[in-house]
Amino acid sequence: MNKMPIHESRAYFRRISFLILHSIFITMIAHSPTIAQEQGQVVRIARLQIDPAKLDSYKAALKEEIETSIKVESGVLSLYAVSEKNDPSRIIIFEIYANQDAYLAHLEAPHFKKYKNATKEMVRSLELKETIPLALETKLK
Amino acid sequence: MNKMPIHESRAYFRRISFLILHSIFITMIAHSPTIAQEQGQVVRIARLQIDPAKLDSYKAALKEEIETSIKVESGVLSLYAVSEKNDPSRIIIFEIYANQDAYLAHLEAPHFKKYKNATKEMVRSLELKETIPLALETKLK
Repeated sequence: MNKMPIHESRAYFRRISFLILHSIFITMIAHSPTIAQEQGQVVRIARLQIDPAKLDSYKAALKEEIETSIKVESGVLSLYAVSEKNDPSRIIIFEIYANQDAYLAHLEAPHFKKYKNATKEMVRSLELKETIPLALETKLK
Repeated sequence: MNKMPIHESRAYFRRISFLILHSIFITMIAHSPTIAQEQGQVVRIARLQIDPAKLDSYKAALKEEIETSIKVESGVLSLYAVSEKNDPSRIIIFEIYANQDAYLAHLEAPHFKKYKNATKEMVRSLELKETIPLALETKLK
């Protein structure tokens, strides 16, 4: 009976140590995409003018393509699509890829090709801008 | 002696259950900003032309402003700044706020006012675009 408190205290210490290590580990896993995001990201901005009569179909196709890319392509880090408030047929897509290879792989992905093919009659113009990242800060890090 | 395996098995089960709940809890905490991001986000795009002679000073001031905003303002979710590859004096900032109040609070924040004041002689033109978010998907969710 005399030894119990010491034994319990050791077990308690082991359990707490394990929990702290476990927390660190889980947090690292949860945040692992940010590790890839630290280096060599490729950021591209696409600006599109959509045929206003086909805007709803275009938005549905874009949304599906974005959701699939984020889900199945590990190197596609962020895809943010917005329309301009004073002209909703103008779309801007802000794209962050882990690196150049991830960007090139995305262009060859079947869901991207499907989207390109499905929307080619909806897009009146497309302007792509290659960029140099200066600061990519997000609360989600 | 006969009871030990049962006792150990129960203790083991309790420990595993606790670890699973703990993992879920830590993951929820790690991802909590995404919960706020689900509703009412305000996305603004700023396009700036900077005096090329003052570009380095401008970039330093912008970087400091972005890092401070993300750190101290809970409603500033993401600030992504890039320069155009074929004209690095053209800057594009893609901004995501939790809601309209967070956006308005940002405009009044001391670090934002300091940045605006420090860079007013460096910025040749500034165009702000209000947008309607269509899809804001990121691996960091």
